[in-house]
Amino acid sequence: MGRDPFGDAVREKLDPVYVVQKLAELGAYGVNLHDEDLIPRDTPPRERDQILRRFRKALEETGLRVPMVTANLFSDPAFKDGAFTSPDPWVRAYALRKSLETMDLGAELGAEIYVVWPGREGAEVEATGKSRHVWEWMREALNYMAAYAKDQGYAYRFALEPKPNEPRGDIYFATVGSFLAFIYTLEDPDRFGLNPEFAHETMAGLNFVHAVAQVLEVGKLFHIDLNDQRMSRFDQDLRFGAENLKAAFFLVDLLEHSGYQGPRHFDAHALRTEDEEGVWAFARGCMRTYLILKEKAEAFRQDPEVQTLLAEYYRADKEALALLGSYSREKAEALKRAHIPLEALRRRGYALERLDQLAVEYLLGVRG
Amino acid sequence: MGRDPFGDAVREKLDPVYVVQKLAELGAYGVNLHDEDLIPRDTPPRERDQILRRFRKALEETGLRVPMVTANLFSDPAFKDGAFTSPDPWVRAYALRKSLETMDLGAELGAEIYVVWPGREGAEVEATGKSRHVWEWMREALNYMAAYAKDQGYAYRFALEPKPNEPRGDIYFATVGSFLAFIYTLEDPDRFGLNPEFAHETMAGLNFVHAVAQVLEVGKLFHIDLNDQRMSRFDQDLRFGAENLKAAFFLVDLLEHSGYQGPRHFDAHALRTEDEEGVWAFARGCMRTYLILKEKAEAFRQDPEVQTLLAEYYRADKEALALLGSYSREKAEALKRAHIPLEALRRRGYALERLDQLAVEYLLGVRG
Amino acid sequence: MGRDPFGDAVREKLDPVYVVQKLAELGAYGVNLHDEDLIPRDTPPRERDQILRRFRKALEETGLRVPMVTANLFSDPAFKDGAFTSPDPWVRAYALRKSLETMDLGAELGAEIYVVWPGREGAEVEATGKSRHVWEWMREALNYMAAYAKDQGYAYRFALEPKPNEPRGDIYFATVGSFLAFIYTLEDPDRFGLNPEFAHETMAGLNFVHAVAQVLEVGKLFHIDLNDQRMSRFDQDLRFGAENLKAAFFLVDLLEHSGYQGPRHFDAHALRTEDEEGVWAFARGCMRTYLILKEKAEAFRQDPEVQTLLAEYYRADKEALALLGSYSREKAEALKRAHIPLEALRRRGYALERLDQLAVEYLLGVRG
Amino acid sequence: MGRDPFGDAVREKLDPVYVVQKLAELGAYGVNLHDEDLIPRDTPPRERDQILRRFRKALEETGLRVPMVTANLFSDPAFKDGAFTSPDPWVRAYALRKSLETMDLGAELGAEIYVVWPGREGAEVEATGKSRHVWEWMREALNYMAAYAKDQGYAYRFALEPKPNEPRGDIYFATVGSFLAFIYTLEDPDRFGLNPEFAHETMAGLNFVHAVAQVLEVGKLFHIDLNDQRMSRFDQDLRFGAENLKAAFFLVDLLEHSGYQGPRHFDAHALRTEDEEGVWAFARGCMRTYLILKEKAEAFRQDPEVQTLLAEYYRADKEALALLGSYSREKAEALKRAHIPLEALRRRGYALERLDQLAVEYLLGVRG
Repeated sequence: MGRDPFGDAVREKLDPVYVVQKLAELGAYGVNLHDEDLIPRDTPPRERDQILRRFRKALEETGLRVPMVTANLFSDPAFKDGAFTSPDPWVRAYALRKSLETMDLGAELGAEIYVVWPGREGAEVEATGKSRHVWEWMREALNYMAAYAKDQGYAYRFALEPKPNEPRGDIYFATVGSFLAFIYTLEDPDRFGLNPEFAHETMAGLNFVHAVAQVLEVGKLFHIDLNDQRMSRFDQDLRFGAENLKAAFFLVDLLEHSGYQGPRHFDAHALRTEDEEGVWAFARGCMRTYLILKEKAEAFRQDPEVQTLLAEYYRADKEALALLGSYSREKAEALKRAHIPLEALRRRGYALERLDQLAVEYLLGVRG
Repeated sequence: MGRDPFGDAVREKLDPVYVVQKLAELGAYGVNLHDEDLIPRDTPPRERDQILRRFRKALEETGLRVPMVTANLFSDPAFKDGAFTSPDPWVRAYALRKSLETMDLGAELGAEIYVVWPGREGAEVEATGKSRHVWEWMREALNYMAAYAKDQGYAYRFALEPKPNEPRGDIYFATVGSFLAFIYTLEDPDRFGLNPEFAHETMAGLNFVHAVAQVLEVGKLFHIDLNDQRMSRFDQDLRFGAENLKAAFFLVDLLEHSGYQGPRHFDAHALRTEDEEGVWAFARGCMRTYLILKEKAEAFRQDPEVQTLLAEYYRADKEALALLGSYSREKAEALKRAHIPLEALRRRGYALERLDQLAVEYLLGVRG
Repeated sequence: MGRDPFGDAVREKLDPVYVVQKLAELGAYGVNLHDEDLIPRDTPPRERDQILRRFRKALEETGLRVPMVTANLFSDPAFKDGAFTSPDPWVRAYALRKSLETMDLGAELGAEIYVVWPGREGAEVEATGKSRHVWEWMREALNYMAAYAKDQGYAYRFALEPKPNEPRGDIYFATVGSFLAFIYTLEDPDRFGLNPEFAHETMAGLNFVHAVAQVLEVGKLFHIDLNDQRMSRFDQDLRFGAENLKAAFFLVDLLEHSGYQGPRHFDAHALRTEDEEGVWAFARGCMRTYLILKEKAEAFRQDPEVQTLLAEYYRADKEALALLGSYSREKAEALKRAHIPLEALRRRGYALERLDQLAVEYLLGVRG
Repeated sequence: MGRDPFGDAVREKLDPVYVVQKLAELGAYGVNLHDEDLIPRDTPPRERDQILRRFRKALEETGLRVPMVTANLFSDPAFKDGAFTSPDPWVRAYALRKSLETMDLGAELGAEIYVVWPGREGAEVEATGKSRHVWEWMREALNYMAAYAKDQGYAYRFALEPKPNEPRGDIYFATVGSFLAFIYTLEDPDRFGLNPEFAHETMAGLNFVHAVAQVLEVGKLFHIDLNDQRMSRFDQDLRFGAENLKAAFFLVDLLEHSGYQGPRHFDAHALRTEDEEGVWAFARGCMRTYLILKEKAEAFRQDPEVQTLLAEYYRADKEALALLGSYSREKAEALKRAHIPLEALRRRGYALERLDQLAVEYLLGVRG
């Protein structure tokens, strides 16, 4: 709707059914769902069923899927000082109930990924000492939800979405790393993975490609939110590729060559300068840029000069490799005695300026 | 020595023995050691022993301890594209050997904490795709080092130190969270914990108190580097409390009330504007500010108005609490039916402006 | 009202008359006015007069002044791509008319400062090339407004308020410096000065004290917005002193020792966690912290050790001073021949760690 | 040489004569000069002349020019707390003399631009109150230098180069705006302009294209430093186009369509991972990317859809335009009475998502 902290809405709210139809036209695979986007807060049960029936009909007619659902635990004033980590146990109970109901809703729509974005789980004021309690409260909530899903026979895998700040001064689960670490402390870690968002990691000036690579390496990339963002400023949710084209290129390269099978979800919104036509131009642009970059990544990896440079970059002397691997006392002794060609290592150049320039030239379409 | 990227050294290198004597005078508990600070690179064995003997003597005379050692894996040009994660296995072998030797050195000096700072384990150029390999290489190195320590009977606990960037464009183990998550994938996770640094987390605009709280909650705070820093700029290593007094206050409050028993290490350096006298003024300032804040934190926690505000903040309705905790089908049904006082929750104020102002007034010394 | 991009309002809008009464009780000197806060958009003239009458009565009863007015050129959807720098001349005309009407309104209330905050004068998309036109459009608008004020006999001095970003991706008049430079290109520069805001300059990681010092040195500090903010993130408008106490201290020190006579305006808002009581706690906190810091700055400047350190810091050798000042050929020749004590200058320490620690100790209230 | 705060040099210093020869081979137009790069500090006069003679010979043989010179006022420990704004007048005198001597040197080499980079004119400690004095000291120095140039008949135009921080915690002349504003307070403002650097403005998260546009509009772009940089981190000086390709594209578009006649100076350095071959790959990459972007900018501006979108974007209703321009009482009255089509303005979409996507597609080389 194009509202921001300083300005009123510029567009009317679109009917979810209409959105489904338009996205299908544009060639999207699915649509993700916040509970309140479909079923407004405090809707009576009968009305809920009616809305749901109409929405399912639109899905059936278009063939669009709902791969993911999530509960909005940030808009309601009740959540102003946290949902799962509110100091008030009534609020925690409300957040939990809303989550169970959203799981029920998502299950009816065939969703298999449940996203948790802890947007209000943060603080501006440290004096409460709340940062000593929140981990336990969050763990309790996530364990509870996983147990409920299991008990109900729901297929959900839970994708946790970090963000450093905004709307809270600081959000507790600030980065991909901090949420990934948290998973290992849950009762059933296999049910939990990450939903990293390009803009969120970029807000903290962190390298999103590195963060996703770490998550992929441990099999925890369950979902991904693609958009764009300037570093170190308010959450912008720009069109994918609108700002950091090079990072977008290497991200697509990573996703396409890592065996990732999950959704490529565009969690962005059109600029507030746009009318409805601009909204669809924006949606088309996200998908189109992804596909262009995918093709470029393929071509870049096939380029003979690139392949030569990479072979040289990773040249693996067998004598050196034999010194590495897992520990044994003998190997450690050999390592201590080995002749390491230090002078050559100090002089070696890695040809990264050339390699990077080749990537830039593929990106600019002047090569390949 | 006061060198920076744009300026030459302004002070002469101090003899490590002299440093030990001065720190003892200032009341320090111990001194931490980079291998090369004591034993310059490529020192022949005999000379090494001589240096070591003289240094041990200074320790004995002053009673200063060496709680922590670490290998410098960042200065040598050989490490220009990484140490443990260099694409060149000879470099990885060199990094590993240097680490084993530093463990030997530290063991002779009684060190029980071994810090790993992956300052060169990063990249400016993504085109190599190295971010798909580095996790495995790093894991191999850390597993190897832990096995060596065990085999040698060394008492080391390994404290991993994250940093987002500088000297590399991006460092792979960028945040407290990313390194904490990595530990869970090691062979012997109990040997590994964190060495968070105030300045490093702050460079990424992250909340250091929250990061330390997360680490403490899982028993992984092995060591801590105290200093100061402006957000979102080059690594400054300012005097503790020189910049973010309020964050320093809540950090001290956390460390002093969490059962943390490890060292409070000041990893900062005097401004380049200073002569030697300024260096000691700087060292005194770090310790003095910590102690002042410790006293203030105590007084703040004892203040009756603070205690009343906190009791109200955490007010825990029994009926609500009964709905929470671990999952059972009955509890979930009760939760779905429960009457949650939504209107009251939406209107509730949390009195955080008042509480925070009280903290500010303790900090400013106008109350308590 | 506590609305943010992710959450609904948590408090009801307060009646401006009530606000005036409360602020008077809290000891405020005046209240600043956005046109739409008092007179909602599209209010018919008769209703406007009624509102105005009631508001003036409240001012008279409380003795509160309205030192400053400003037009809201950011909320209306018409301004989505700029107000004075919209590509659409109808929008520019609307912005100009709204400004004239606000000048009329302010004049009725006795305001003498007119603030211009170009919150929508920015861009997310460079492809329009608009950055080549906006300077001329903005100049035209400001010249027009100054001419109108003169023609109407209004006493206004115009205070321009920079901000780097938010709500726009980038705002054209991004920093104190860029807006200050712009003033020199206006027809009547004497009518124009700055309204720097602590949070805005801090969002860009810039040093607010330095920015204000530059503005003061050229006599252009017409108004100031005091609040607080973490660097490099969304606009927070925190309680004055809530975050950067040391910067706040040196800012108060500067304002109180520079002959600045204008308002100290707190342009902040209470946290969204607060109810109305929290709002007033917040307002009291802003004023109280300012006064505490003012007293501390006084004491710090009087401290004999501080005075000794400063005298030494600024030691001014007469022989050296004689080489400086304005140019003459003789002086340049003398300078080229002069014996400059380079070795001493290279060894000199500036005792800034000690001086800064003293400032910290005054701030913490453990000295003085 | 590839030294950084954590690592030793990885490459040997290249002979300036050799650099001149290599740059000529690569097709560069000129080479810029820091005094100490050519003539090491404290070189005796006779040796100075010898070095100079050899260097001039290389210039003559290759046809390379020296368009710009500058004095290194940041490396010498004497400048640790400032050069022109040191509190010590001997240091100020030394900085001034070094500048005069560099002007003499540059004049011999035919330089016509003199750059002033105030890298040490900053602070980490506010307690000195130095920010109240520095403006006057800097003004004195710049006025003196301009008077010297005039008196000697030197052709210099002075290009001032802002930077927000590093090596100092904060540099006083932090942004393009702050230095531009300062020029208007000098005795002979016409002699002074800006030397904006891509990386420096980007470090503060500011929009470099906007900054350059402001400078161009007032005729003050005397020189420009092209390179690249991630936002909100240490000074990286990356290869032009290595990071922010889209910003680089719009910058080239601006420079090539604004009548700018000055040098396009690449002030970057090769990554520390590189050997000498990498250094030349880096230099070639800077120039090549600039030329590619120049061609793309041309094609983008010629695209019929782009032209249609821009014509629509800037549609200029005559009735609206008649209400604008310079003030008259009659026009103001007409403006107040005019019918402004508010509803249409509120609904209008600006088609910026489409326009921006077209720019991205030109950049990616998939269109045009």
